Amino acid sequence: MAEVYLDHYAATPVLDEVAEAMRPYLSEEFGNPSSLHHRGDAAREALDSAREQVASLVGAAPEEVMFVSGGTEANNTAVKGICWAARRKGNHVVVSSIEHFSVLNAARTMAKFDFEVTEVGVDDLGVVDPEAVREAIRDDTVLVSVMAANGEIGTLQNVAEVAAVAKDKGVPFHTDAVAAAGWIPLNVADLGVDAMSIASDMLYGPKGAGALWVRKGLRLMPLLDGGIQEDGRRGGTENMPGIVGMGKAAELAGRDLADRASRVSAMRDRLVKGLLGAIPRLRLTGHPTERLPWNASFLVEFVEGEGMLLFLDQKGISVSSGSACTSRALKGSHVLTACDVPAEMASGSLLFSLGLENTDEDIDYVLETLPPIVDRLRQMSPLYAKYLKEGGG
Amino acid sequence: MAEVYLDHYAATPVLDEVAEAMRPYLSEEFGNPSSLHHRGDAAREALDSAREQVASLVGAAPEEVMFVSGGTEANNTAVKGICWAARRKGNHVVVSSIEHFSVLNAARTMAKFDFEVTEVGVDDLGVVDPEAVREAIRDDTVLVSVMAANGEIGTLQNVAEVAAVAKDKGVPFHTDAVAAAGWIPLNVADLGVDAMSIASDMLYGPKGAGALWVRKGLRLMPLLDGGIQEDGRRGGTENMPGIVGMGKAAELAGRDLADRASRVSAMRDRLVKGLLGAIPRLRLTGHPTERLPWNASFLVEFVEGEGMLLFLDQKGISVSSGSACTSRALKGSHVLTACDVPAEMASGSLLFSLGLENTDEDIDYVLETLPPIVDRLRQMSPLYAKYLKEGGG
Repeated sequence: MAEVYLDHYAATPVLDEVAEAMRPYLSEEFGNPSSLHHRGDAAREALDSAREQVASLVGAAPEEVMFVSGGTEANNTAVKGICWAARRKGNHVVVSSIEHFSVLNAARTMAKFDFEVTEVGVDDLGVVDPEAVREAIRDDTVLVSVMAANGEIGTLQNVAEVAAVAKDKGVPFHTDAVAAAGWIPLNVADLGVDAMSIASDMLYGPKGAGALWVRKGLRLMPLLDGGIQEDGRRGGTENMPGIVGMGKAAELAGRDLADRASRVSAMRDRLVKGLLGAIPRLRLTGHPTERLPWNASFLVEFVEGEGMLLFLDQKGISVSSGSACTSRALKGSHVLTACDVPAEMASGSLLFSLGLENTDEDIDYVLETLPPIVDRLRQMSPLYAKYLKEGGG
Repeated sequence: MAEVYLDHYAATPVLDEVAEAMRPYLSEEFGNPSSLHHRGDAAREALDSAREQVASLVGAAPEEVMFVSGGTEANNTAVKGICWAARRKGNHVVVSSIEHFSVLNAARTMAKFDFEVTEVGVDDLGVVDPEAVREAIRDDTVLVSVMAANGEIGTLQNVAEVAAVAKDKGVPFHTDAVAAAGWIPLNVADLGVDAMSIASDMLYGPKGAGALWVRKGLRLMPLLDGGIQEDGRRGGTENMPGIVGMGKAAELAGRDLADRASRVSAMRDRLVKGLLGAIPRLRLTGHPTERLPWNASFLVEFVEGEGMLLFLDQKGISVSSGSACTSRALKGSHVLTACDVPAEMASGSLLFSLGLENTDEDIDYVLETLPPIVDRLRQMSPLYAKYLKEGGG
């Protein structure tokens, strides 16, 4: 049976070059960068070099990049760390309503610490209006966090514009670039942001590593107290294999960004066009053009996303119906709700997240496999029967 | 040149069997355990299996074990998570004064959140008196945290006795077992503890993974908000290679614990006896018998620890002068201070942390290499000259 993996937003395979770079750091070069002997020195050099590789991907100064355990820790550190450090100045934080839960729930947790949270809405395409952010900012706002791109619906935000609004108001601005890094150019100076989160696994590096870039001078209360690692901002022995792997993955992502984006978006465009042509009552979610190269997200009317997932899985096709982080909760997506998608339609969401190892044949296979599955599921759907009876189709 | 690594408290090489177990989880079995397709199922099975392996090492129920990014995150989650969840009940936390900084500084951070912290002292051998803990507990105490063993001086605590005091007072008890796990038997039921931290790298598993066991029913506010991973207590895509490696490392540590402990403590005893016989004015720190099998920690009078480290490094011997987490800060150890070691003596601290791959030849090499180094450094020491002049030696 064909094996077609189209769930790269949930997980990516580590690239061979990345795995190769990591290998020595398990058993041979196993030193702790804090140790004051030759094994410590070797580890510290590898750590510095990975930091330069990650910094280079986003045009940052290496000393402003801190390594953490992944995108979720990066986002939690940014939101909670910046809010807590500034709480004598103010107790208000602004986020968009379509942030990943590692930003949104981190902000909501701040409400337990006497913060107020304003969640700025989006339009039907998932775009945040910079003017809405301006209106949300108050005198006591200490942080604005708006993502660079949404992984569930693909929509890219006007990060530079939103950052300019925050800057104009004198409020630090963080962007969650986990879904975007490696796929669209991200330069912290050009964007004018103050903090940015990146995850290794979204760059085809290993799970368990991430980075938070924070502009020099922006205060941050550490989330993980302990030793003086990461300039005292994050305790804990550095995950050297993970960090070395993330560094290599960042280097490759920076080098190949344009090629990857054009190759993958071409496949993605063919998938979107093909499915929209073959399946009636199918709708693309998110922005039609300003979207992540790898993202093809849909609403399939009259069917449940989970049903499609299971049938596709039986045919060897791995996809998801939204963010993996919440998939087992089987709740409706807060992102689709924010885009004004009615609950009964949202349950038919389907997310194809394409990746580097996909081929044109993979797309062909999906184009021939999905339409009959949708057909079959619709035949079993009372809602579809009602729709037909009422003259639809 | 000989290469003798005796700094396992800073870092351990990953065991071959562990590296082998991890390998497929980078590029082949790369699924996300939350995904609802066959790749997700495979990852979830591996995650469940690792959780059972770790639970088994400490006699815990698998569903009570949560995976985190390391010992530091485990300790921060325990201290902050339990305190925050209980803050309506009370605002007081008790820790020992020789805790690792990931417990001690986490507790001190709680002081910024209206908590009071009581640091219970130790005797000269580094032992916490359970009665001192009893006296420190107040009506508003919501957590007691005392480590199972101290990695810097090796001293084992009477965890069961301290836990019994906390239980008697109705206060949850956490123990940091990072330095002890895999070396002394730890059964959460026998010890009567409510939460326990473990780190993968101290079990010869990979860096970047750790586990926190929390007794069912004990409330915890998550440190990392996000998806519903780890039963909603820790967001973020699971570090599958790290977790699988930690599981395997825990299984091997449980299986071989007695053998490892007896083999390594025999080498350690020979090292301690040999050095005490060969170097005058040398003192073993920590408890002489109730100590970790791998720990040989000393105070060398009239010399600086850093000098010894550098000379030993030139001879191929890797050691440390205390915790790697603070070594580059070059500050005196809070553990030695708590044991009433005067500052001028504490600067001569030397920590040999033995490990699985050490041999009798390694010990012989240290026994012949260190005494002349100490001699040479003392010849350069004005304090030593003064001591000789005053009739010492």
